[in-house]
Amino acid sequence: MSARFSVNFVDGAAVSAADRGVAYGDGLFETLRVVEGHMPLWDRHMARLRAGCERLRLPSPDADTLRVEIGRLCHDLPDAVVRVTWTRGEGERGYALPASAKPTLVVQVAPLALDPAAYRDGIAVRLCETPLALQPALAGMKHLNRLEQVLARAEWDGTAWGEGLMCSTAGDLTCATAANLFAIFGDRWATPPVTACGVAGVARAEVLACRDVAVEVLRPDELVRADEVFLTSAVRGILPVREFAGRRWVPGPAVRALQAHWRSLGLPLPLFEGWSK
Amino acid sequence: MSARFSVNFVDGAAVSAADRGVAYGDGLFETLRVVEGHMPLWDRHMARLRAGCERLRLPSPDADTLRVEIGRLCHDLPDAVVRVTWTRGEGERGYALPASAKPTLVVQVAPLALDPAAYRDGIAVRLCETPLALQPALAGMKHLNRLEQVLARAEWDGTAWGEGLMCSTAGDLTCATAANLFAIFGDRWATPPVTACGVAGVARAEVLACRDVAVEVLRPDELVRADEVFLTSAVRGILPVREFAGRRWVPGPAVRALQAHWRSLGLPLPLFEGWSK
Repeated sequence: MSARFSVNFVDGAAVSAADRGVAYGDGLFETLRVVEGHMPLWDRHMARLRAGCERLRLPSPDADTLRVEIGRLCHDLPDAVVRVTWTRGEGERGYALPASAKPTLVVQVAPLALDPAAYRDGIAVRLCETPLALQPALAGMKHLNRLEQVLARAEWDGTAWGEGLMCSTAGDLTCATAANLFAIFGDRWATPPVTACGVAGVARAEVLACRDVAVEVLRPDELVRADEVFLTSAVRGILPVREFAGRRWVPGPAVRALQAHWRSLGLPLPLFEGWSK
Repeated sequence: MSARFSVNFVDGAAVSAADRGVAYGDGLFETLRVVEGHMPLWDRHMARLRAGCERLRLPSPDADTLRVEIGRLCHDLPDAVVRVTWTRGEGERGYALPASAKPTLVVQVAPLALDPAAYRDGIAVRLCETPLALQPALAGMKHLNRLEQVLARAEWDGTAWGEGLMCSTAGDLTCATAANLFAIFGDRWATPPVTACGVAGVARAEVLACRDVAVEVLRPDELVRADEVFLTSAVRGILPVREFAGRRWVPGPAVRALQAHWRSLGLPLPLFEGWSK
């Protein structure tokens, strides 16, 4: 099945050409996983969406109505990936905000399948050349201005690389094109800040809530000295990194414990022989 | 009349909800003025659009076909503002480029009316707090990631300010939210570079082609010492600045000469008593 859509609660797949989402990327999105109708990270998704709406001066969607709509579109899917797009709606030409915004809601739903090998062995990641600009006014939000990620992801084809890491224009590692980054040095867990660029991932927030993690700048030459490296994503969960810049890792106990935590939340990750937690 | 639209050469106002323009702002736009069917800056618009397509790895639109489509939509309008939006078209979820992009073309047309007072006396401009991030990978292009401009334009309401000037995060003046900036110091003309942020305006290119202009960094405290200050826009033409940061100007000879040049191109600007060129 390809994706199904609803736009403003009506099944269909069209957005007004006058929508400011199309014109300026003026809006936000969330990408979430729905397992048998359950959304274990729902509150975190809504908290981030509401915070973004406040920063962009957008009205927030009604959480209950949105939840019902997602459930309706996912009703026959045991495991689904859902994208919620929330734009400022139609506007006249020009950047000025409409006097009264009527946001557009797009809900996109597709079945989810995760690759077992990625969870067992980890993925190889590359360093992208496209940098993330330092822009505190937009950092952290999952907004619709994503050309940096599009250009970074366009740097490679094929399946040799499972993700690409992105540095800020200051040279600090920030995140992957579509996931957050964690590294473990002995007992110390670390993840880069997302206050100058990058997205404050919902899965990142879950890890920060259940582990003691230092939010600190990481440079590529430091990352290769880590004992474990992994990526987090609300859809893909906990992805061990098995290779970066010539350094190789075997998924370690911290990654395995987090994968188990993910399953305990109600977000199953592939299980494999020799690992039963 | 409100705006009229065509999408992929069909009259109507809907874009696929799967369009990467909506999802990521993955595309470009041009805003141009059409006077009695003529588009004097057409070649500059197409050159910028093609350069942007190359940088974003997008196919370019066919110029002749696009020109015919614009003419069709403008046929009954003596003076029109046209927005051409060119996105990467539909895509699967995720940042990776579609194997074969089928871009979406949106043409939006509305009648244009210019405010005579702005051309006679100039406009007052403010300094925006929202900065422009330094991002050479995107600078110069008129792409669809415009949240910085949206936030800057949202800083003021009402008609006291005709535009807002934006600085880079490094503190250098770069442009207005929807126009480029020029300043004249004695015989020296200056405009900020747009290689780290900002848009390489089509009207800016026209001025650079017909005057000797230094492309150089301008700081707000330097701008107030200029003899003349003006903004350029493909739609609005040459707009004198009459006030910025407490400094007041009366439109001077350079601005008047450029306004005359604009008229000679076939882009009429309002005429007023005491000025007959």
